[in-house]
Amino acid sequence: MPMHNLASSYGQQLVDVVVPFWTEHALDREMGGYFTFLDRKGQVYGTDKYVWLQARQVWMFSKLYNAFESRPEWLEVARQGYAFLEAHAFDADGRVFFALTRDGRPLRKRRYLFSETFAAIACSEYARASGDEAALERARATFRLLWRLYRTPGALEPKIDPRTRRCKALAMPMVLLATTHEMRLADGDDPLYRQVVEHSLDEIRGQFLRRDECVLFETVGAGGERLDTPEGRCINPGHAIEASWFLMREGVRRDDQDILRDALDILDWSLARGWDVAYGGLYSFLDVQGRPPLQLEWDMKLWWPQGEAMIASLAAYALTGEQRYVDWHERIGEYVAEHFIDREFGEWYGYLHRDGTVALDCKGSAFKGAFHVPRTFWMCYLIALEGRAAQPWHLA
Amino acid sequence: MPMHNLASSYGQQLVDVVVPFWTEHALDREMGGYFTFLDRKGQVYGTDKYVWLQARQVWMFSKLYNAFESRPEWLEVARQGYAFLEAHAFDADGRVFFALTRDGRPLRKRRYLFSETFAAIACSEYARASGDEAALERARATFRLLWRLYRTPGALEPKIDPRTRRCKALAMPMVLLATTHEMRLADGDDPLYRQVVEHSLDEIRGQFLRRDECVLFETVGAGGERLDTPEGRCINPGHAIEASWFLMREGVRRDDQDILRDALDILDWSLARGWDVAYGGLYSFLDVQGRPPLQLEWDMKLWWPQGEAMIASLAAYALTGEQRYVDWHERIGEYVAEHFIDREFGEWYGYLHRDGTVALDCKGSAFKGAFHVPRTFWMCYLIALEGRAAQPWHLA
Repeated sequence: MPMHNLASSYGQQLVDVVVPFWTEHALDREMGGYFTFLDRKGQVYGTDKYVWLQARQVWMFSKLYNAFESRPEWLEVARQGYAFLEAHAFDADGRVFFALTRDGRPLRKRRYLFSETFAAIACSEYARASGDEAALERARATFRLLWRLYRTPGALEPKIDPRTRRCKALAMPMVLLATTHEMRLADGDDPLYRQVVEHSLDEIRGQFLRRDECVLFETVGAGGERLDTPEGRCINPGHAIEASWFLMREGVRRDDQDILRDALDILDWSLARGWDVAYGGLYSFLDVQGRPPLQLEWDMKLWWPQGEAMIASLAAYALTGEQRYVDWHERIGEYVAEHFIDREFGEWYGYLHRDGTVALDCKGSAFKGAFHVPRTFWMCYLIALEGRAAQPWHLA
Repeated sequence: MPMHNLASSYGQQLVDVVVPFWTEHALDREMGGYFTFLDRKGQVYGTDKYVWLQARQVWMFSKLYNAFESRPEWLEVARQGYAFLEAHAFDADGRVFFALTRDGRPLRKRRYLFSETFAAIACSEYARASGDEAALERARATFRLLWRLYRTPGALEPKIDPRTRRCKALAMPMVLLATTHEMRLADGDDPLYRQVVEHSLDEIRGQFLRRDECVLFETVGAGGERLDTPEGRCINPGHAIEASWFLMREGVRRDDQDILRDALDILDWSLARGWDVAYGGLYSFLDVQGRPPLQLEWDMKLWWPQGEAMIASLAAYALTGEQRYVDWHERIGEYVAEHFIDREFGEWYGYLHRDGTVALDCKGSAFKGAFHVPRTFWMCYLIALEGRAAQPWHLA
């Protein structure tokens, strides 16, 4: 496998095909921020601004500027989004809204902290790109707030009555691990970040990972108990695979073989369980015992799990040199090339039926924006450059 | 079309196939109430009790006892569910929980009033079946409470910040129309019920129905304004068709040709737009302008819209005698027979792919229980008996 050819190919797709789709169609030059409701051709079909995607696009373009190529136009894209976030995304209490109108008025604020995590990494990476000290301070303040809220029982209204059932989701420690990676790049290895990383590793590896069942669960009891409910039996292969490369990155960073072992096991299990041998592609949700999943879209092929699997399999190859990871990487890449990539209008479709036909041909929505696809190509580019690059992939 | 043969056939499917599935598998004889997470064979895969379905099954079995055949075992099924609701479903403030544990402890209470509407009709119909005065009083109290909360701005936390955007959903006036129908059967034609019916008719016909676009919308502004957002352009053909037969029922009741005209137009438009001419079956969601829908399951074929369309097309035929409604009824019935009915283990599948293959083979879930399928067969039975029955369909 000629890794430098792979790097060129991923870098080229990123710069020539994916990034232009967003710079051509997503910029709201009138009111700031980004359009994300983009149809197959990039035409706007909705103008509300969902903060997850506003923040993730700021992060992505700042990251490309910092770690791919310092193109002034990419910094300008990030600046436009950062200005919109700064002006509109933060509530008086420091929390971050979930959805805004086109002109930035608040529509929804949710009980979860994901808006805050994505706002923190938008601010931290934009601070690295621009040198804007206020952006870094905003990142720090947002991170401290979300950590305090996460650790304070009752600070946010729980979805389920905690007097009856206390449970927790993989998403939060997994996103905290990724968020802290970004904070450390911008702000150095503060003791708070080390504490959050340790806490996240302990939760993921000690509570969500179950070696006896070969699975990384989505939901466990508040003390890590296995829950025999449909929610407790749920596996999200894309999430587990994304967590696996977050763990690989931390494992490489500290050269910790135990973390790497867990990460590779999670990847192996999730590919084995999650891959649809009949039609190809990764399922969205499964029940660990093969009972009916709760999600009616369980067998749809979504764009982001396939991208996460491209990253994780290539990272696993870079770590181990094992041929089977190359095989997985190529298998997934071929599936993506055949079914997800739109050669006529650019970017990837987001939502396929189980059989690989397109279910919904939009390129952007409330949840799909300039994030997973460019991050996939950027990460695969970086990993394929491993050993040659000035900057190892786990430090970008 | 020999209507009495049709009535026999629907009555037989109801009694011999559909009802036994639920009486055999759904009864929790240990802790009361009903299991609804039932897999293809009827095996329990989850034990949480979602109140929508607990209440709807009480209503359904009480209704069958009252309006189909007074079998003591059906009253007993209803009694078991009513006792569970009475003991566990009501919060101290009179509101109704959304989800309970198997033994009745509260898991979730939501900002919507649908749990209250379904609890009200469970209580009212059970009161008719059992003669239990306390159940009728509970129905009245729940109805009065939900109407007060619905009419009091800010009484329930809105999903979207009302300072930024005020909108409302078809579901509420539509469900109020059906709820009031049940309350009037149990409690006579109280002025409050007349007020709620008038209000619901005005909202549905005056604000959600748009003759210029031939559509019944799902979401409009607080004053009925057309919203040019993905939410505002959304059509749910199953919902619109369900609303059409609720309107037919009220139109027949008061012999109002204008209401009937609106109902038939909504049915015609919704069948024309909603039917998938390539694969058959009704889509779940569409954008009125053909833009991308927000729901990734938009083209899946769910069980309940097909059942609502069987009811509405047969009711339209009973009203007009027009052949095209028979044709629709048969077309939908054939699609259901071919794709939804499970001849091996009973009941219908709930969730098909666009192409009619089974996506999720469970028979029950948090949203599918002993309600839409038995109601479809019962209503079709009643309508097919029109003219011969002791009780006209619109008065049952």
